[in-house]
Amino acid sequence: MQFHLDGFHPGDPRYSDPQDRVVPPPLKRPLPQQVDVMIVGCGPAGLNLAAQLSQFGSISTCIVDQKDDRLLVGQADGIACRTMEMFQAYEFADQIQQEAYWVNETAFWKPDAEHPGQISRSSKIQDVEDDLSEFPHVIINQARVHDHFLEVMRQSPGKVEPHYSRRLVDLQVDTEAEDYPVTLTFERAVNYSQYGKEQEIVKARYVVGCDGARSSVRTLIGRELVGDSINQAWGVMDVLAVTDFPDIRLKAAIHSNNEGNMLIIPREGGYMVRLYIELDKLKQDERISRDEITADYLISAANRIMQPYTVEVKEVAWWSVYEIGQRLTTAFDDSEEGRLPRVFLAGDACHTHSPKAGQGLNTSVNDTWNLGWKLAHVLTGRANPELLSTYSAERQHVAQMLINFDREFSTMFSAKPKSADNPDGVDPAEFQKYFVRFGRYTAGTSIRYNPSSLVGSGEHQSLATGQTTGMRFHSAPAVRLADARPVQLGHCVKADARWHIFAFAGQQPPMSDQCRVRALCDFLQNEHNSPLKRFTPAGADVDSVIDLHAMFQQYHRDIDVDQIHPLLQPLKGRYGLRDYEKVFCTDHSGAGDFYALRGIDREQGCLIIVRPDQYIAEILPLDDYAGLSRFFEGVLTRP
Amino acid sequence: MQFHLDGFHPGDPRYSDPQDRVVPPPLKRPLPQQVDVMIVGCGPAGLNLAAQLSQFGSISTCIVDQKDDRLLVGQADGIACRTMEMFQAYEFADQIQQEAYWVNETAFWKPDAEHPGQISRSSKIQDVEDDLSEFPHVIINQARVHDHFLEVMRQSPGKVEPHYSRRLVDLQVDTEAEDYPVTLTFERAVNYSQYGKEQEIVKARYVVGCDGARSSVRTLIGRELVGDSINQAWGVMDVLAVTDFPDIRLKAAIHSNNEGNMLIIPREGGYMVRLYIELDKLKQDERISRDEITADYLISAANRIMQPYTVEVKEVAWWSVYEIGQRLTTAFDDSEEGRLPRVFLAGDACHTHSPKAGQGLNTSVNDTWNLGWKLAHVLTGRANPELLSTYSAERQHVAQMLINFDREFSTMFSAKPKSADNPDGVDPAEFQKYFVRFGRYTAGTSIRYNPSSLVGSGEHQSLATGQTTGMRFHSAPAVRLADARPVQLGHCVKADARWHIFAFAGQQPPMSDQCRVRALCDFLQNEHNSPLKRFTPAGADVDSVIDLHAMFQQYHRDIDVDQIHPLLQPLKGRYGLRDYEKVFCTDHSGAGDFYALRGIDREQGCLIIVRPDQYIAEILPLDDYAGLSRFFEGVLTRP
Repeated sequence: MQFHLDGFHPGDPRYSDPQDRVVPPPLKRPLPQQVDVMIVGCGPAGLNLAAQLSQFGSISTCIVDQKDDRLLVGQADGIACRTMEMFQAYEFADQIQQEAYWVNETAFWKPDAEHPGQISRSSKIQDVEDDLSEFPHVIINQARVHDHFLEVMRQSPGKVEPHYSRRLVDLQVDTEAEDYPVTLTFERAVNYSQYGKEQEIVKARYVVGCDGARSSVRTLIGRELVGDSINQAWGVMDVLAVTDFPDIRLKAAIHSNNEGNMLIIPREGGYMVRLYIELDKLKQDERISRDEITADYLISAANRIMQPYTVEVKEVAWWSVYEIGQRLTTAFDDSEEGRLPRVFLAGDACHTHSPKAGQGLNTSVNDTWNLGWKLAHVLTGRANPELLSTYSAERQHVAQMLINFDREFSTMFSAKPKSADNPDGVDPAEFQKYFVRFGRYTAGTSIRYNPSSLVGSGEHQSLATGQTTGMRFHSAPAVRLADARPVQLGHCVKADARWHIFAFAGQQPPMSDQCRVRALCDFLQNEHNSPLKRFTPAGADVDSVIDLHAMFQQYHRDIDVDQIHPLLQPLKGRYGLRDYEKVFCTDHSGAGDFYALRGIDREQGCLIIVRPDQYIAEILPLDDYAGLSRFFEGVLTRP
Repeated sequence: MQFHLDGFHPGDPRYSDPQDRVVPPPLKRPLPQQVDVMIVGCGPAGLNLAAQLSQFGSISTCIVDQKDDRLLVGQADGIACRTMEMFQAYEFADQIQQEAYWVNETAFWKPDAEHPGQISRSSKIQDVEDDLSEFPHVIINQARVHDHFLEVMRQSPGKVEPHYSRRLVDLQVDTEAEDYPVTLTFERAVNYSQYGKEQEIVKARYVVGCDGARSSVRTLIGRELVGDSINQAWGVMDVLAVTDFPDIRLKAAIHSNNEGNMLIIPREGGYMVRLYIELDKLKQDERISRDEITADYLISAANRIMQPYTVEVKEVAWWSVYEIGQRLTTAFDDSEEGRLPRVFLAGDACHTHSPKAGQGLNTSVNDTWNLGWKLAHVLTGRANPELLSTYSAERQHVAQMLINFDREFSTMFSAKPKSADNPDGVDPAEFQKYFVRFGRYTAGTSIRYNPSSLVGSGEHQSLATGQTTGMRFHSAPAVRLADARPVQLGHCVKADARWHIFAFAGQQPPMSDQCRVRALCDFLQNEHNSPLKRFTPAGADVDSVIDLHAMFQQYHRDIDVDQIHPLLQPLKGRYGLRDYEKVFCTDHSGAGDFYALRGIDREQGCLIIVRPDQYIAEILPLDDYAGLSRFFEGVLTRP
């Protein structure tokens, strides 16, 4: 898709008239007096959580923001592959793919050996390694991601709409209260001068602070960001420009000899580009104080860095200066010894770091992706509140890794290039190597949660060498048996807080007496310690808490559809209609064999328990019924 | 996507609450007094035309329908691959793919050899041959296709919304009038009893009758449908049902021995299925008159046909009886000797036939896909009105082919299966062979327009053996040079009425002095007889009428981006921004080599002129500048 040719306009580019592109703000309504979950902040972390909770009509969710409407411009723009996989769970990854810029390659530029005052290209590399994810790494305005979350919220049973113009001024947790222990006080940012500040009081079971680096929620629960408070300033601008720089439509890292460093991120629509300029690395005599920085100043700096090329800016769609240190909150919730959490923090409220590896939005949405299903479990009675303690444990570890990575990456990025003048500088080839090595990290696919009640020990890891316990279930092609449709197996996992058991058959004839998938189905259907029998509420569909899928190695036409176990074609809904979308075969068309791609033991098969957030909880032998029961006993409660 | 589990509800299934799924009807407004194009009928033909014309803010378009709101249920449901390619030009093919059922395989069932009173599967075949199209053959409620066209109409510069509740009662063409020669009289189907029938009169430059088999427009211009008026009755029903028939999620053609024939079409959402039952072929003593047919009657018939299997229907979402003959209109417009057309017919107003090969909707939308850009050309002054005569010529030929095909297919389908009792019956294996052979036809990809001012003679066909003059440009993978993005080359052609020249380079070094693509660019940029110079209005972007693209055989990283001809990176829009999306390379990643897949002469290269409707107008040697000029001189007028 091409757009922004005649100037930048926010909103859905499918509308030709820029005035139609932005949905009007929701009707102004008072806040509810009482909610299950109060989310403070309509950034990506908050909206993802609201989208997740809105899947449940029985959970009352409220989301507020200080601003008076949705975000329209600026801020983050990089969507890692792993985040796209999460968007797929909401069914809007396709629309994002269609509209976004795809980062396919990255170009590296360094001081030219013969003319060190000029830059020359050192190399181009593939940005995302093959088969790292079924989704590309893309760039799109953060506001468009918000729009999709808002649409999911509106379309879902919870029908959640944000309340804007609300500033949190107080938050009290009554540790003695049974229900709705958190009391929040908001000031409504309307009619200040006329009527004074209107206050609203809301009682909540749980509160999640997604209110950014200057989080009020964090302050009110007495947590703080610890680390280097300000150590780097970056100028960032989205521009429509004409340039002779040849890699303007590639992500490009530019290290000049003496003028500083710059990162070029092409933007969606074919014409816009984002420039990140590291202000502290500008030549000493070019630096000015932050207050004096203007868009023109940044444009001049860009032109000096990219000599002999020039960039003529025609329109600045948005610009800003970031001053951000590597900081991490002391805890992700308000829990104390002996007291379970009632207030959580997520996103920039927990961790800040440099923007240049594109990890901010991605880490933030994945914070609440981790928290959302846990809150839904507790609020719908599927799990005890102890489950909520795993949020801080899992995400603080991830944030610490991010801070460590960012420190290392920033140091590499900011170092002067090695040259005759700068013998102690960093060899740009070293930077590039580092960049490649950390590709999986920046794609978000290397996150691994430690063993816990939610993550097994990895004892049977050898049964699926390409699927790692604690990491995200890595999708690959499959063919759905009943309708022969080529699919991605991982796309079975939607944002509906269900658990999944993927049973990969060994080499016995499918559904024969020897078939261990059949035996597993018999166990799950009939035995008293079957987790399906134990944890599915009476009257609910058999897959409403734990969703069972099976995969076979045979060519799909060689499997007899009539012989599938009834548990794999369950009768559901008010009519008792058969669900035919549980059974898959490996793809024999050349698209890729799941067993080969993901190292599934062809002889033994295995079962993989996948969490509602797509992470692998446990890998077990197909007949380890005890292990299967034990795992779910440790997480779920009986209805 | 799975939906309809607890009952069928029309509209966008992404909304969980069925009440939110349907967009409210537009505000009731009076008809305009004067329009460029009046479209009568909001079926797929009319909406596609409105969507196409709405791309032009300078063209005033009005579309009316007798009904009081958009279609919500029933009617056609099959979307051929070729139609998906057209949807891609509007950018909604992805959304359709996401929501639709994919027809991957077709199963054939025949009387069992040992128990002729029962059916048994004879075989399964792949429904669409490999590389026939980059899109699947899908099934989705026609109403959802309408919804996407309506959204395009709203989003486009023309901002067209339908006027419902309008019945056409008169149409007069003043052959002497210079402007707005057609006068239409409508009755407004509101408040009949209270105020009598309100009449509205609209003057139009052109009228298009997309008002179905009983077209008022057709009657008013004195054309008629000729052919067998009623020769087949089909019962059709969309049901939510439970069955033990194993292929219920595959398209399945069932021929029973004595009980009749049935076609099973699985529907979107995973639970619904459409059953087509041929009523005339039911056992003699089971037949009843049309008026007495009920849904229960159809369900009983289905159960008799599919013995030993049964189907228990839980909900009938929609059902109907079709009585349709193979009929064709005497002409597709109102032109007469010496008088150019002012009124056109499209879709079912021109051709009717059996529903079972799924050709109705697909042929109808392709009628107006052919007409839309031609009307846009004439109304924006890009071409003379003579261009409009090619519509009837091209589409009547297609419709005749369709009627011929349908007659043959229906005979095959309706014949009794060959058996000991029916020695003169059709061997189901023969039917299956026929089905396979006509796969390209039913996919819509074999349509070929005859040589005319718009289609060349095929003289240089050997330069591109996999692209046929007069047929649709067959897409294949490519890599876009500037951003290394893997794309489908054919997706350059959008629904914007522009012409395209694809220049495929030979083996000379790209953009070297020997490179014939470079020479072509020099010609197009500089010479007085360049069609770009002749037909692009002053002040308009260089690609606004004819869009030039180039493709090279080299690996994309081996081509120097700096050396691309300026015409292939043109400066556009009010800022003069560079368009980087014109140059492509073959995909060396294994996705498929365009030259190999489409038989492009590697040594010589070639150029392919593609019409705004994606059909190949001409294939020429890269240096046949005279041929190139001549072609466009025959079609376009100088601004």
